[in-house]
Amino acid sequence: MLGLMQTWPLTVDRLLTHAKTWHGGREIVTRSVEGPIVRTTYTAIEARARRLTNALLALGIAPGDRVATLAWNTARHMEAWYAIMGMGVVCHTVNPRLFRDQLRYIINHAQDRIIFTDVDLLPTLMALRAELPSVEHIVVMTDRAHMADGADAGLLCFEELVEQHPVDAIWGGFDENTAAGLCYTSGTTGDPKGVLYSHRSNVLHSLVTLQSDVMGLSARDVVLPMVPMFHANAWGLALSAPAVGAKLVMPGPKLDGGSVRELIETEGVTFAAAVPTVWEMLLDHLRATGARLPHLKRALIGGAAASDALIRAFEDELGVAVSLAWGMTETSPLGTLGATTPEVEALPPEARRRELSKQGRVPFGVEMKLTDDAGAALPHDGLAFGRLKVRGPYIARAYFAREQESLLDADGFLDTEDVATIDPLGFMQITDRAKDLIKSGGEWISSIAIEDLVSEHPKVALAAVIGVPDPKWAERPLLIVKLHAGEHATREEILGVLDGRIARWWIPNEVRFVDEIALGPTGKVDKKRLRELYASTALDSPRANA
Amino acid sequence: MLGLMQTWPLTVDRLLTHAKTWHGGREIVTRSVEGPIVRTTYTAIEARARRLTNALLALGIAPGDRVATLAWNTARHMEAWYAIMGMGVVCHTVNPRLFRDQLRYIINHAQDRIIFTDVDLLPTLMALRAELPSVEHIVVMTDRAHMADGADAGLLCFEELVEQHPVDAIWGGFDENTAAGLCYTSGTTGDPKGVLYSHRSNVLHSLVTLQSDVMGLSARDVVLPMVPMFHANAWGLALSAPAVGAKLVMPGPKLDGGSVRELIETEGVTFAAAVPTVWEMLLDHLRATGARLPHLKRALIGGAAASDALIRAFEDELGVAVSLAWGMTETSPLGTLGATTPEVEALPPEARRRELSKQGRVPFGVEMKLTDDAGAALPHDGLAFGRLKVRGPYIARAYFAREQESLLDADGFLDTEDVATIDPLGFMQITDRAKDLIKSGGEWISSIAIEDLVSEHPKVALAAVIGVPDPKWAERPLLIVKLHAGEHATREEILGVLDGRIARWWIPNEVRFVDEIALGPTGKVDKKRLRELYASTALDSPRANA
Repeated sequence: MLGLMQTWPLTVDRLLTHAKTWHGGREIVTRSVEGPIVRTTYTAIEARARRLTNALLALGIAPGDRVATLAWNTARHMEAWYAIMGMGVVCHTVNPRLFRDQLRYIINHAQDRIIFTDVDLLPTLMALRAELPSVEHIVVMTDRAHMADGADAGLLCFEELVEQHPVDAIWGGFDENTAAGLCYTSGTTGDPKGVLYSHRSNVLHSLVTLQSDVMGLSARDVVLPMVPMFHANAWGLALSAPAVGAKLVMPGPKLDGGSVRELIETEGVTFAAAVPTVWEMLLDHLRATGARLPHLKRALIGGAAASDALIRAFEDELGVAVSLAWGMTETSPLGTLGATTPEVEALPPEARRRELSKQGRVPFGVEMKLTDDAGAALPHDGLAFGRLKVRGPYIARAYFAREQESLLDADGFLDTEDVATIDPLGFMQITDRAKDLIKSGGEWISSIAIEDLVSEHPKVALAAVIGVPDPKWAERPLLIVKLHAGEHATREEILGVLDGRIARWWIPNEVRFVDEIALGPTGKVDKKRLRELYASTALDSPRANA
Repeated sequence: MLGLMQTWPLTVDRLLTHAKTWHGGREIVTRSVEGPIVRTTYTAIEARARRLTNALLALGIAPGDRVATLAWNTARHMEAWYAIMGMGVVCHTVNPRLFRDQLRYIINHAQDRIIFTDVDLLPTLMALRAELPSVEHIVVMTDRAHMADGADAGLLCFEELVEQHPVDAIWGGFDENTAAGLCYTSGTTGDPKGVLYSHRSNVLHSLVTLQSDVMGLSARDVVLPMVPMFHANAWGLALSAPAVGAKLVMPGPKLDGGSVRELIETEGVTFAAAVPTVWEMLLDHLRATGARLPHLKRALIGGAAASDALIRAFEDELGVAVSLAWGMTETSPLGTLGATTPEVEALPPEARRRELSKQGRVPFGVEMKLTDDAGAALPHDGLAFGRLKVRGPYIARAYFAREQESLLDADGFLDTEDVATIDPLGFMQITDRAKDLIKSGGEWISSIAIEDLVSEHPKVALAAVIGVPDPKWAERPLLIVKLHAGEHATREEILGVLDGRIARWWIPNEVRFVDEIALGPTGKVDKKRLRELYASTALDSPRANA
């Protein structure tokens, strides 16, 4: 027997329509790519996005097509998102920091028919133009006055498209499982792979993250998504903020400390989200200038591990509540968030901080388990580490154009390829990427655990540990260190921080001091490249498993 | 093109499984029907509910069947809910305050096969037993020791069923549109009508209400649902509290001020929800004893209009934030809630309070419009009043066993049969039930507006306005007044409060002083009965439309 409730497909256009109807005057403030701060409202964005849908229809775009954005966080970027998704077209968010080969690969793989881009990113795209046969039009997200002279052969102007088309476009009305967004994983192994979000997954991700113990946005919040819209949907903020009618502040291309601090202050930002690097830049700026952040209440940090020093600086020096979050492109992205619980609140302060500096707890909507290599469940004791697997309505089951290759185990869980522990209070902690674990003499060594300890050394700017082939132990750890400018250190000095803190056989055989460590396009250490560079390294002293 | 996200049906068993897995030790505290305070946990509730599912299977219950509960808010009632719904059976919540004829009607109409009931409600049910042919078993929600001697012929014992069956029952795995719950509207017109909730509607209602600007529950909240589980699902709290792992405090049958105050104090309740009458009883107790509510942060008031005096008492005297909410059985029930916004916060204090004492704003997940009698949309100007219509994934489209009779208009909206205004800040205010509007000389008179003003008179305990037939004006208003014990008043004295505050032609022709005003089973004035009683009243002075 089925219930007798209304049919109301969960489609993302409803998020913006709700904002227009019930929070229509709320502002979206953008530091524009052209320079000035520009202000608009949900009412205006909704109308302009509908005009843009009509423009896409006039250009022959049809449901199921892919239309890309290669753009910074701006109100125009939001208009493009809703215009594309509202009509049932797939919005492919492209990361401008990708290497040229990756850009070409994913645009061709997605078969994007139109690309929306910002004026400053246009040269990058035009350099590839001849190699992108599926792309029929490039829309420059500016007005006619800011289109470069003479460069407009074949280029469409965003503002002209908006002006030239009527506001009567109809959104939604299709299956809520219709594809809405496409985002490729940065692909540190193999070719980039596309995650194909649905309308349903985007709306459910919004609702799950809006719970008080997750992001908990309110109409009274002023939200600054410093995480880019091309980075796992800006963690859903361009969808969830309209759902509650929160004011949005879009930073455009400028994420330096001074620019960010100015926006937080002048716009009264209460909630901001970014990867650790951006928060570090802001902290450096605040310390250098003595500025403070009077309005900011919550700082969401994700995308990479945050250092204890960063967390303490924001909480203790600046009085901003820090939440750490973990997720992946494949998880829309929110997997866990470091929300407190009555049990955590009952802990002594340092123990409480240790819990909250882990990757966090799952909200309702995400199921999570740890398994050993045979797939058997491991206990939540904070000690057992195993494969981290997740299941839920906004988690991928396959990649775009590879639908037959299921990513799921027999119980329907996605293997995150992360290795983690879960403690008795439910807090998950990533201990390594599965492929970055080092197998020495049949036992696992965590590269992240070693990197975290080495990073505590005041001379160390960045540390990476990889496994290199070893005839006796199969693999042994190699430590690669970049020191702060002007510093010098010996191998013994660096390895000294590990003494007594990890098993003796975990201690890297060798230390290589380098000037730069290769980073991937999302700012993470590119261990695939490091492993290629050091594949044939003959390690000095086999002090392993002693 | 469809997205490639996981299939994860929104079924209510997942709410409790989440609580067990990630908040397993959190308490559910009950003032038991037998008397003592009893404590359990989400872990224990989940296991016992699975045992109970196996008991139902052993009794021959199959998916799609209806199993009823006639019971107070207790942990056992929650166990019954999840046991029934988890296996795909429809949980029919029956209001013990219904009149005998209504009880018989709805149990027979639903064709309930089993009824779970509390020991104190058993006599009511047994008195009807012979007239309930579909009912195969009655389960008494207690242990063997509390089963009445000799009365156990054909009665099953809840605790014995739990003990006798294994914990391995499998929940979910069916279509998320499967029926989960059934609740009849109290039916002030015609026969009671059953609202058939689905798993999807229950889960989406939970997620929508968990937004910060709606109920916003947290794992750190201690939630006291004083609104009964048979009254529109206790406003979803027995579903939404497990979703976030909030501690639950169940008041059992005792809602007197002293009992409630004791639970709030000893259990540290932070969030409580009830109809105005229950809050009034608590307030009377607090004033009589001088007690305070140190833990309580939020009071949710719904089900009927709250007086300004009640709101002020909780906010100003007791320091508890009051939220008003509006909904119906047909809306799962949350339709609107009086959440503040930046615009409301910017108002002077009294204007702010006036906004927040309206029925509130819609969250994402509810669409709402006002229309005139022809179905045309009316403006949100706070003046135009019209039919209130709602649309969304947890709003009914038809009643149980009347699937062919759509409740929806051409755009898919449910007519709430309330008449309301919506102001420019998005706040809705009910002005009347459509059927209670009085049509005098072709123009509408709001009965509620008159009742609200008359209720301000210090001698008035309860006031009701109905339309009675009038040869000249079609209908004219009649005011029925119950005075406080020992008071006397004249017609002129009572009508005097209306002078200059409503149009002259709205002023009732006549005042009838009565000892009692008929109330329906949910405590609202039974205007249907009043209209029957006064149908042939010849009104005194036709001062209408002057």
